[in-house]
Amino acid sequence: MNASLTLTASCPDQVGIIAAISGLVAEHGASITEASQHSDPVTRHFFMRYEIDATRLPFGKAGFEQALRPLAERFGMDWQVSSSQAPYRVLILVSKQDHCLSDLLYRWRRRDFIFDLVGVVSNHEDLRADVEQAGVPYHHVPVTPGRRAVAFEAIERLFEDTRADVMVLARYMQILPGELCARLPHRIINIHHSFLPSFVGASPYRQAYERGVKIIGATCHYVTEELDAGPIIEQDVMRVHHGDSVERMVALGRDVERAVLARGLRYHVQDRVLVHGNKTVVFP
Amino acid sequence: MNASLTLTASCPDQVGIIAAISGLVAEHGASITEASQHSDPVTRHFFMRYEIDATRLPFGKAGFEQALRPLAERFGMDWQVSSSQAPYRVLILVSKQDHCLSDLLYRWRRRDFIFDLVGVVSNHEDLRADVEQAGVPYHHVPVTPGRRAVAFEAIERLFEDTRADVMVLARYMQILPGELCARLPHRIINIHHSFLPSFVGASPYRQAYERGVKIIGATCHYVTEELDAGPIIEQDVMRVHHGDSVERMVALGRDVERAVLARGLRYHVQDRVLVHGNKTVVFP
Amino acid sequence: MNASLTLTASCPDQVGIIAAISGLVAEHGASITEASQHSDPVTRHFFMRYEIDATRLPFGKAGFEQALRPLAERFGMDWQVSSSQAPYRVLILVSKQDHCLSDLLYRWRRRDFIFDLVGVVSNHEDLRADVEQAGVPYHHVPVTPGRRAVAFEAIERLFEDTRADVMVLARYMQILPGELCARLPHRIINIHHSFLPSFVGASPYRQAYERGVKIIGATCHYVTEELDAGPIIEQDVMRVHHGDSVERMVALGRDVERAVLARGLRYHVQDRVLVHGNKTVVFP
Amino acid sequence: MNASLTLTASCPDQVGIIAAISGLVAEHGASITEASQHSDPVTRHFFMRYEIDATRLPFGKAGFEQALRPLAERFGMDWQVSSSQAPYRVLILVSKQDHCLSDLLYRWRRRDFIFDLVGVVSNHEDLRADVEQAGVPYHHVPVTPGRRAVAFEAIERLFEDTRADVMVLARYMQILPGELCARLPHRIINIHHSFLPSFVGASPYRQAYERGVKIIGATCHYVTEELDAGPIIEQDVMRVHHGDSVERMVALGRDVERAVLARGLRYHVQDRVLVHGNKTVVFP
Repeated sequence: MNASLTLTASCPDQVGIIAAISGLVAEHGASITEASQHSDPVTRHFFMRYEIDATRLPFGKAGFEQALRPLAERFGMDWQVSSSQAPYRVLILVSKQDHCLSDLLYRWRRRDFIFDLVGVVSNHEDLRADVEQAGVPYHHVPVTPGRRAVAFEAIERLFEDTRADVMVLARYMQILPGELCARLPHRIINIHHSFLPSFVGASPYRQAYERGVKIIGATCHYVTEELDAGPIIEQDVMRVHHGDSVERMVALGRDVERAVLARGLRYHVQDRVLVHGNKTVVFP
Repeated sequence: MNASLTLTASCPDQVGIIAAISGLVAEHGASITEASQHSDPVTRHFFMRYEIDATRLPFGKAGFEQALRPLAERFGMDWQVSSSQAPYRVLILVSKQDHCLSDLLYRWRRRDFIFDLVGVVSNHEDLRADVEQAGVPYHHVPVTPGRRAVAFEAIERLFEDTRADVMVLARYMQILPGELCARLPHRIINIHHSFLPSFVGASPYRQAYERGVKIIGATCHYVTEELDAGPIIEQDVMRVHHGDSVERMVALGRDVERAVLARGLRYHVQDRVLVHGNKTVVFP
Repeated sequence: MNASLTLTASCPDQVGIIAAISGLVAEHGASITEASQHSDPVTRHFFMRYEIDATRLPFGKAGFEQALRPLAERFGMDWQVSSSQAPYRVLILVSKQDHCLSDLLYRWRRRDFIFDLVGVVSNHEDLRADVEQAGVPYHHVPVTPGRRAVAFEAIERLFEDTRADVMVLARYMQILPGELCARLPHRIINIHHSFLPSFVGASPYRQAYERGVKIIGATCHYVTEELDAGPIIEQDVMRVHHGDSVERMVALGRDVERAVLARGLRYHVQDRVLVHGNKTVVFP
Repeated sequence: MNASLTLTASCPDQVGIIAAISGLVAEHGASITEASQHSDPVTRHFFMRYEIDATRLPFGKAGFEQALRPLAERFGMDWQVSSSQAPYRVLILVSKQDHCLSDLLYRWRRRDFIFDLVGVVSNHEDLRADVEQAGVPYHHVPVTPGRRAVAFEAIERLFEDTRADVMVLARYMQILPGELCARLPHRIINIHHSFLPSFVGASPYRQAYERGVKIIGATCHYVTEELDAGPIIEQDVMRVHHGDSVERMVALGRDVERAVLARGLRYHVQDRVLVHGNKTVVFP
């Protein structure tokens, strides 16, 4: 694949944004290979994502950013340019369950979608062998009652030392400190094992079983200080029936969880997710 | 179609139930054309539904009930026999929106599944013409602040006078008095315009829009004294995306609502739903 | 709703198309309220759909078309402008089954989405009362073995006389003459009662039943001279199981058919479908 | 889990089958923990599956079979008893793609459902390391133009030597000799990368892309002498859109394929599939 640049931007809507941005790209002789725009009629906010064939650009990512800056300022844009030559760096946090981890390891190895896996952190030793066998560093950071603060400082340091861009909670089972969440907005992705906002909190499959729902689901969302309430990236569901025990629902749920997390992470590392307030715009 | 009898029963599980019931049916030379059983491993409760070709039975519904009674007592069964010759009698309650009503009227006229439509009650006059055009009695029972009790007494009387078996709230928009719900257990069916237990209460699509969910749904459930908390019969969902306004979500939701209600009502009038505690066993 | 214009266009891809079109719109002070673009990397063909708030435009549809013409010629565009003030005119063809017709009548009356229903044509008299009750002209055009040519001439004349934009085969059950299809490219929409290309031809549910598939579906597509082979607009599916007879599959299928046809027609009359070769680009 | 026996049986339908079988089970004091029956109204064939808690039975699998034999003969049954203590023995065949294999290895290790994995056969060496790392024997059997017969004799010998019960073609990409298929009826399971009967044969995703379908799927089926035409066990689908290239469809398809194959294999090794003619009855 040729080098490509992805521009994502959002700003208050006004006449002329698309014209200005696409004009700039055209002026430098570059092709837009994928273009998505959305204009929210309620908030009057504008969102866009351009994938740009960069082979004919006279400059690289930095040059393109410099060329864009005046426009971005004029429109009051939140914006970002990513290069296909610098994939997202991902740090995965797990506990003992490995269905999501195992799926992400597989997709990473097979390049199902492209990201750099910089390490796996766990509060247990159980999954070390599998992770190291894949050639990925494994960090055991125990989270014990009196030493939670220390543990999460260590994890944040690992995030910085590995120059990670995004932290993925792949069934991590620990609640992150609010300040950590606040310092990494839209950079921590969680998979929640229910169709949020149904069944927040613990044991969602047991709750679902007891409520007698006919469909279960999973939710991939950004982590915010408020538990299970961050912007939703992706959701999916699966039918269950009266014959399915809690255990079978948990097993069926594993398949939905790993699929939804993989999709959510793919959208994130391909810059397909723009956040506005507590909602996301996803260009799939 | 030949006359058929449907037996539904539930009781504490024990050895020999299927043998005894199927033995009785066989003894009288009748064929079981559809058999479903479920044994809940947690509650140790047993559920069954037999559809029986009654053409070769030496007796009718009453005779079959008499033959069954000793077995039913021995096993401590909750049980019921329905005859295809006496379809369920359905009373529909609506407000001003007619997407569910219109769909049920269509299915009733075209015999998509079989039930007797004994009348439509509404707190408004808006839908009278459509209902009467279909040859169905329309009852206008206004529900005004000071006269709620009177209104619901009138509705309960209509239910009795029409000898209705089941009351369907087809987007009725009024909360029924708790005592009425308690007097008609598992005989009032509601369609809720959300994927319960998400977004209970008012304006679920607005709630869903504001939460930024990626999937919306609808829930058909029995009405109990506790609002939106009764046993769930059927649910279904539909994908939405960031471009869908609240209005579009409401419109998409109408399609899911009418489909889920029709399915739920079909299951009910075909005796495919057995209730146990706050959960249902559905033999589709 | 304010008056809006919808521009759809496609052309060989090249640098500067978006810039030029969005520049023109901006230049006249108009807002783009919904923008969708797609660039096919294989065929190097470009597709776009802009919904434009026309309230601040200094001219109407004709003026906008005139302003666009030079650009359209420069880029070699296939293009079209629609105005929200001139809804699509739809002529529906049916036979005896009314589940799709009944659903479209409902959506038309309730303005679920906007189109003008100019008439219903049928080769039978069965559905006259329902159609006329809704205030829609009903045309009985019998299609008998020796007089097929005459019948389809009459239908084509009706299409012209009613100034219809699109003909909808809502389970019409007759094969249209090839020349008629050729004269109305992408203006005849059919609902096929299978998940094409599975089960082309007659009795698809029987074929599906006999093949033992676990999922059935329906396909909304443009009609071309080659039977069941035109560009697909929309598809959807539904699970079936071994207990579902052909009759039950037909009944379940009705629900999918009407939903898929309604979605397909909505996409068409909202200019969300662009055809290229035998494929469609759909901006939902 | 306690030892359990699973009885599956099918025979021409007649009065008294359920009574006789459930009577026999009850007579020996055993509980039926899961019971499913189906009576085909067209073919008048009867199908059943009983899961029996065997802890209180006075005999084992062999004793139960002996007790059943007279009944089975009386009703002309095809029947089989499986014991939870003797899991199905599975031999997997792969080529170079490993998404299905990798998923089955994961489920086998984590006991997502229970089976014995007796070996993996491939016509390539590529996947040896992954398989052997999991502790599973890997057999490289090249399939070269002049030596196909020799290769498949070797594979059949491996099937016998490993005492395998079922052969799983996990994207094996080779067409098995007709005689081999005929010798192992309902014992060879394939995953086909399309929603059969759409797109039989080679490159189904390319075919799907070119036909412009809006939904892709996968089919798990028993292999018969006629290519892609054996009894279907399970199918599932996934939405695609105009922006999805053939490559993206292949990638999305991998997720459906592995899910459908896993579900199909689970149904098979839990005796949930009964075959009749070219169709299956699946008790999920």
